[in-house]
Amino acid sequence: MNEYSVSTDEITRLAADHLWLHFTPLSDLRNGEVPVIVRGEGCYLEDSHGHRYLDALAGLFAVNIGYGYGGEMGQAALDQLRQLPYHTNWGYMHPRSVELAAEIAGLAPDGLNRVFFVSGGSEAVEAAWKLAREYHSLRGERRWKVIARHIAYHGTTMGALSITGLPECRTPFEPLVPSVTHVSNTVRYRRPPEETEAQFTAFLLAELEAAIEREGPETVAMMIIEPIQNAGGAIPPPAGYLEGVREITRRHGILLCADEVICGFGRLGAWFGSELYGIQPDLITCAKGLSSAYGTIGALIVGDRVAEPFLNGKAMFDHGMTFGGHPLQSALALKNLEIMRRDRIVEHVSTTQGDFHATLSQLLDLDIVGDLRGSGFFWALELVKDSGTRETFSQAECDWLLRDFLAERLLEAGLICRSDDRGDPVVQISPPLVATQEQFDEITGILGDVLSEAQDKLKGSR
Amino acid sequence: MNEYSVSTDEITRLAADHLWLHFTPLSDLRNGEVPVIVRGEGCYLEDSHGHRYLDALAGLFAVNIGYGYGGEMGQAALDQLRQLPYHTNWGYMHPRSVELAAEIAGLAPDGLNRVFFVSGGSEAVEAAWKLAREYHSLRGERRWKVIARHIAYHGTTMGALSITGLPECRTPFEPLVPSVTHVSNTVRYRRPPEETEAQFTAFLLAELEAAIEREGPETVAMMIIEPIQNAGGAIPPPAGYLEGVREITRRHGILLCADEVICGFGRLGAWFGSELYGIQPDLITCAKGLSSAYGTIGALIVGDRVAEPFLNGKAMFDHGMTFGGHPLQSALALKNLEIMRRDRIVEHVSTTQGDFHATLSQLLDLDIVGDLRGSGFFWALELVKDSGTRETFSQAECDWLLRDFLAERLLEAGLICRSDDRGDPVVQISPPLVATQEQFDEITGILGDVLSEAQDKLKGSR
Repeated sequence: MNEYSVSTDEITRLAADHLWLHFTPLSDLRNGEVPVIVRGEGCYLEDSHGHRYLDALAGLFAVNIGYGYGGEMGQAALDQLRQLPYHTNWGYMHPRSVELAAEIAGLAPDGLNRVFFVSGGSEAVEAAWKLAREYHSLRGERRWKVIARHIAYHGTTMGALSITGLPECRTPFEPLVPSVTHVSNTVRYRRPPEETEAQFTAFLLAELEAAIEREGPETVAMMIIEPIQNAGGAIPPPAGYLEGVREITRRHGILLCADEVICGFGRLGAWFGSELYGIQPDLITCAKGLSSAYGTIGALIVGDRVAEPFLNGKAMFDHGMTFGGHPLQSALALKNLEIMRRDRIVEHVSTTQGDFHATLSQLLDLDIVGDLRGSGFFWALELVKDSGTRETFSQAECDWLLRDFLAERLLEAGLICRSDDRGDPVVQISPPLVATQEQFDEITGILGDVLSEAQDKLKGSR
Repeated sequence: MNEYSVSTDEITRLAADHLWLHFTPLSDLRNGEVPVIVRGEGCYLEDSHGHRYLDALAGLFAVNIGYGYGGEMGQAALDQLRQLPYHTNWGYMHPRSVELAAEIAGLAPDGLNRVFFVSGGSEAVEAAWKLAREYHSLRGERRWKVIARHIAYHGTTMGALSITGLPECRTPFEPLVPSVTHVSNTVRYRRPPEETEAQFTAFLLAELEAAIEREGPETVAMMIIEPIQNAGGAIPPPAGYLEGVREITRRHGILLCADEVICGFGRLGAWFGSELYGIQPDLITCAKGLSSAYGTIGALIVGDRVAEPFLNGKAMFDHGMTFGGHPLQSALALKNLEIMRRDRIVEHVSTTQGDFHATLSQLLDLDIVGDLRGSGFFWALELVKDSGTRETFSQAECDWLLRDFLAERLLEAGLICRSDDRGDPVVQISPPLVATQEQFDEITGILGDVLSEAQDKLKGSR
């Protein structure tokens, strides 16, 4: 079951002694509670005990083409490493990152034509903030602040973390970079029932406008938003919201950055969420889907208007990193985009997302499922005590439900998705973009069984 | 000359329109001044015009095994991508990152046995600072400050940048994370001639002790140092300094982080600089040489004493990133370490560094070369107007020398190294660790010719 040179028992023992996992208690490793994933194929993963999982999280919203292209991607890696394993984008260039920059510029919304490469989403957000600050300086303004949204996750390096709107991620590490303000996100489930979508949009935009006035518009460098916000559970924008944000930020001279680390490269059935919603941001951050996570690469895509002051004389963006535009990672991203085009993967999402939504909608019959929201292949179920009253769970119930019950039972049932309560409790569903009706049914079937059981247990205990 | 699908002219045109280089004016791209590197072999690179360069910078202090292992590394990449292209270190694990963690723990100094993976040096430093803050919190102390050294480069994400001691990198992006204090680095060339090495060490340690007292020891979380500091030019520690830093930080309960992003994995003729100098830091950051930059991976190596409070109950390091411990990058790092062991690359540095030093020392005969410092395969020449008086250059002379003359003439002569004036003007020399006497001679010969010419031109112009 395992072609690795080291046995499963040995892996578990070595991990307990030497590996430090991310966002995971070390005691989980020492208790042997952490699955060892050894193999992938299509939408499925297999662990070291031969258990098979449907990966309805695509790694971490990342493996857009699924796990089945290893041979083709591997050949691209071999070819690149034979020719040029490494060089920098720092005073030199090499063909692969140039080709990739041109390819990304061709896919990005009109007016965004330049690409600065990094190694992941956090680094892309760091680059965005730094570029925004230097852009304003070159134009003779000193603007340094950022506006972001509550519960929004934008990364964990200290700049990106300062922007992240999740107190539980930030608080242990303060003081951070000062001057980030958070405004409401667009979750509508708990708004007053009589409020119309247009009223909700007007409320959000008025709040944003007030926040900018409070900070002083002339001090605000950038606003950052995900087209659909991940943390809190696939939160779509109400009609008119993104257009309104674009108008307000433009009017105040604030750069608008669309964080498309998750939404970009097909997850919503378009190459970019900005395209889907018809807005032209000044900056786009991307990472995961750019290489379908076969590589370790992210990018900041820069609008022409932002690039303009950097084209004069010896003006320079005083930023860089050793691995930016790495030849291997660039080659993998290029091959990934070629595969996505050739196999019409974005079109597949666009044409089947309605079926996926319809299938998942069956879960709304469960009393524990209050809301189903999202778009494309990016969905979340909000879990509630009672879908009629929308009453949410106590912290103790939530802890039991998400961490004790669902985490364990879903794995047992062979489904990887994420039960999370950053914000209200949700189950996040974001499979590889090659999933078909077979996987829509399997995801829905397993979730239906496990959530029914949870519902029964919670009702029994009350 | 070029097996890429796109011609050199087309690459240059596409780059001018779409690529954003790191730490490089965009106008350089548009003026066609940026070399397009297309191929590597051993210690040599080739550009799109067929010009060949001896890469005496190993990429950016990174390609430790040189460019000649692409086939073997590529096969490892292909094998890994076929089996498991991606999974996380976030609630799950997979064999490659476990094996790599165990391998690194085996190479690291005694007492450092756990590894948290990231995607580069900046991210490693971010992780170090965050872990230091959370470590102290778990022990009931609130400590958040960092002590670093002037002119030291530790990365460019906002946390790492706050630690970096180069005002020209920091100032354009302030405000950053507060509470970093910088103390003197260990460059000795401009100290009073009558000062002994022991006196210099005593001066540095007294300054550090005073800085800690001034900040309040109970507020300082971490001190970070490179065993040999890169920026400023391969600055070695005087005898007794690192031991003294270790003693002072331990006495004040301050974690000591050795930033071995450059020094680690053989550059100094030992697996780690900490080993070479016989100190046991609490944390080690590493990246570049870990995969010889064939991959995009870094790591934070954590001492047992630091891990201890995280072993209890549900204690957790609240940090993580999507690409941490990426299977492909882990596989490349594992293969790199296998090659370094098998081909005895660290031993090669250790046994030939004396010859390298002796060969480079011929350059001290030039009046323009004031100092040669470093260790292993990591050297810098400090350039001066007059080696007798140690007089340095004016800013205008420095700009002409480094940016106009040396940058261009060294490339013409087929040598990649770095002329830099972060700190005093230096030429940095840091070739792949597979370089031999042939390359020592070639580096020295080209530098001798070009520096002689520079010296003549500078004297003629005075």
